[in-house]
Amino acid sequence: MNNFVYSIPTTAYFGKGQIQILGETIKTHGGSKVLLAYGGGSIKQNGIYEVILEQFRKAGLAHVELSGIQPNPRIESVEAGIRVYRENGCDFILAVGGGSTLDACKAIAAGVKYHGPVTDLFVDESGISSKITAVAPLATILTMAGTGSELDMGGVITVGNDHKKKVVLHPLLNPKFSILDPEYTYTVPEYHSMAGVADIFCHLMEQYFTPDAATTVQDRMNEGVMKAVLEEAPKILTDPKNYDARANIMWASSMALAGFQFVLGKPGFPFPLHGMGHELSSRYDMTHGVTLALLTPAWMRHTMSTAPEHLPIFAKFARNVMDVREADDAKAAEEGVRKLEEFYSGIKMPANLREAGVKEEDLEMMAAKAVENGKLGILTSIGKEEALQILQMAL
Amino acid sequence: MNNFVYSIPTTAYFGKGQIQILGETIKTHGGSKVLLAYGGGSIKQNGIYEVILEQFRKAGLAHVELSGIQPNPRIESVEAGIRVYRENGCDFILAVGGGSTLDACKAIAAGVKYHGPVTDLFVDESGISSKITAVAPLATILTMAGTGSELDMGGVITVGNDHKKKVVLHPLLNPKFSILDPEYTYTVPEYHSMAGVADIFCHLMEQYFTPDAATTVQDRMNEGVMKAVLEEAPKILTDPKNYDARANIMWASSMALAGFQFVLGKPGFPFPLHGMGHELSSRYDMTHGVTLALLTPAWMRHTMSTAPEHLPIFAKFARNVMDVREADDAKAAEEGVRKLEEFYSGIKMPANLREAGVKEEDLEMMAAKAVENGKLGILTSIGKEEALQILQMAL
Repeated sequence: MNNFVYSIPTTAYFGKGQIQILGETIKTHGGSKVLLAYGGGSIKQNGIYEVILEQFRKAGLAHVELSGIQPNPRIESVEAGIRVYRENGCDFILAVGGGSTLDACKAIAAGVKYHGPVTDLFVDESGISSKITAVAPLATILTMAGTGSELDMGGVITVGNDHKKKVVLHPLLNPKFSILDPEYTYTVPEYHSMAGVADIFCHLMEQYFTPDAATTVQDRMNEGVMKAVLEEAPKILTDPKNYDARANIMWASSMALAGFQFVLGKPGFPFPLHGMGHELSSRYDMTHGVTLALLTPAWMRHTMSTAPEHLPIFAKFARNVMDVREADDAKAAEEGVRKLEEFYSGIKMPANLREAGVKEEDLEMMAAKAVENGKLGILTSIGKEEALQILQMAL
Repeated sequence: MNNFVYSIPTTAYFGKGQIQILGETIKTHGGSKVLLAYGGGSIKQNGIYEVILEQFRKAGLAHVELSGIQPNPRIESVEAGIRVYRENGCDFILAVGGGSTLDACKAIAAGVKYHGPVTDLFVDESGISSKITAVAPLATILTMAGTGSELDMGGVITVGNDHKKKVVLHPLLNPKFSILDPEYTYTVPEYHSMAGVADIFCHLMEQYFTPDAATTVQDRMNEGVMKAVLEEAPKILTDPKNYDARANIMWASSMALAGFQFVLGKPGFPFPLHGMGHELSSRYDMTHGVTLALLTPAWMRHTMSTAPEHLPIFAKFARNVMDVREADDAKAAEEGVRKLEEFYSGIKMPANLREAGVKEEDLEMMAAKAVENGKLGILTSIGKEEALQILQMAL
């Protein structure tokens, strides 16, 4: 096991009605004028917006608003947020929404304390956003489970005409607190709920499939969250207002990335599936989690066939998570992938890239862009050729 | 799933040589004069003491010492610590040792900020130590894995001539940071290493065996840590310097109680085994973890026979943790207990109370004292009669 630092500085207030602590808790973190950021305005339909304003009133907090943050949030939204925050003398940021709003607000929180272009704050050679030295205090109210942004230190921002995905990553970006009320996810449409599930599962898998570092505790905990996701997600399909299922999926989202706890002690994690998935989102504006469900089985089979020395970990995944009883490693591994495909199909993810609208002639360009900042992968090294093979397998 | 607040304010520096951050990190937390507390002086034999002093010198920190904190630490040690801290104008506490030293230092940290008898600070009717409103900053260096005190908010102190165990419990009691270097546990004798393992396993079980609250994520994560303990502990027996095994057991100790994360969302946890185990420690000065290994199978069988409606959770434990394949719940549950007994026997715990030196004539007195502050248990209600039955079954 490698050395590591474990730190989860975000407090999570989990459950029904936890929003009642909002106003006073912002005040205890020094907030008096809040930048309230949200997306397309669904919070005005489901009543959350009114409860937030009531909390502000009760606690005597002023606020200004930044609305319209889009999925796959763009740098322009971040820059707008920085302007609004500064022009209005804000001292606290409240992000209300899913991962996109939360991610944009993390970049805003860092940007308002930095005197230069916010693009300086993306991850650099050091592996984190080393130019971040201070951030505005940030809290979140989660309305969609998936990205894990509510309890982690990262965010993904889209930049430029070619929709490049860039990452902000720094321990200071952990929210001060996050309010996680599973009831807020009741109205998330089925497709997006299940894309969130696929995102959660991929976060867990990308921390799991690494070279062995004898991290038994982390790996067994990770398997536990994966099993919980497999067990609970289908219940949402049959009953979108199943509180306990929504609660478990929301908590799985948070646990998957809290302090990156399942990759602690391991040798890095370049997140190969996220690297390629982002290119699909960029080219087709495809929902993030869906791209991951599409690529994961292909990536698994590609790794299993090109690097059979890693079969044991795929067999372990099959046995410990997918409940495969097969004794032979190669057969067990393949059976694990097949059961995972069954799971994705059960939660109504598209069966392949073609079904999701991807054109064969785009694959080469996307493969090239996925690796333009360096090879991906950690079990195997994924360059352009390997990325193309995986995309073709997923087609 | 019930509402909960998740908060783990302690940063863990895990791995070889992490002590090198000690001096500077104490300074970032405002420390300039440190109360250095430790137990019997083994840190002077294994070299840790010298490294600490070197860290103090480099960082320009003054210090005073409190040594000789005993296992099952007594209130007198706490009171002595409070005096030393105050008389020397300390502003930081560094606890170096196992759970006993850490627990004593938590009480000292609260006591130095309280103007009244430290006995006021034990858990009251509110369920926590409600009179604690401020604490001195505390850091820990763990030299023995087991109690989980390094990443939680509680401590156990022994009081009076009848050696009564009392608890301090408050979110402010989380250490600011803990240094967890698995190499520091290489020299812990086998018996105490394995007693620590039994303690860890019991913490996990007492959070697991509760009425069903649909906490799938928490329960599957808990099962994962339990499986890791079963897998790693025996490796220490054959090779006490197996770094990865020591690392996994140390991290399991921390994960088991970090933020009490596996009981979040559940309806309380009166820790019945700890309640009874403390009476064995008081009467016979028996190592804490050993008492738990002795009582757990008896408690399981007692619950399974007196409250068969709870058989499904015992069967689930047997299947998900102990790898039992039996389809019938009652048979699976019994097979799970049998395999757990096998595990305890494998890590050289005594087979029963009699073998551990307990006298039959003391059982009734211990049963009475175990419940004198109220009934124990959460799956079933354990009064004096039930406690006596369990003790008799364990004899």
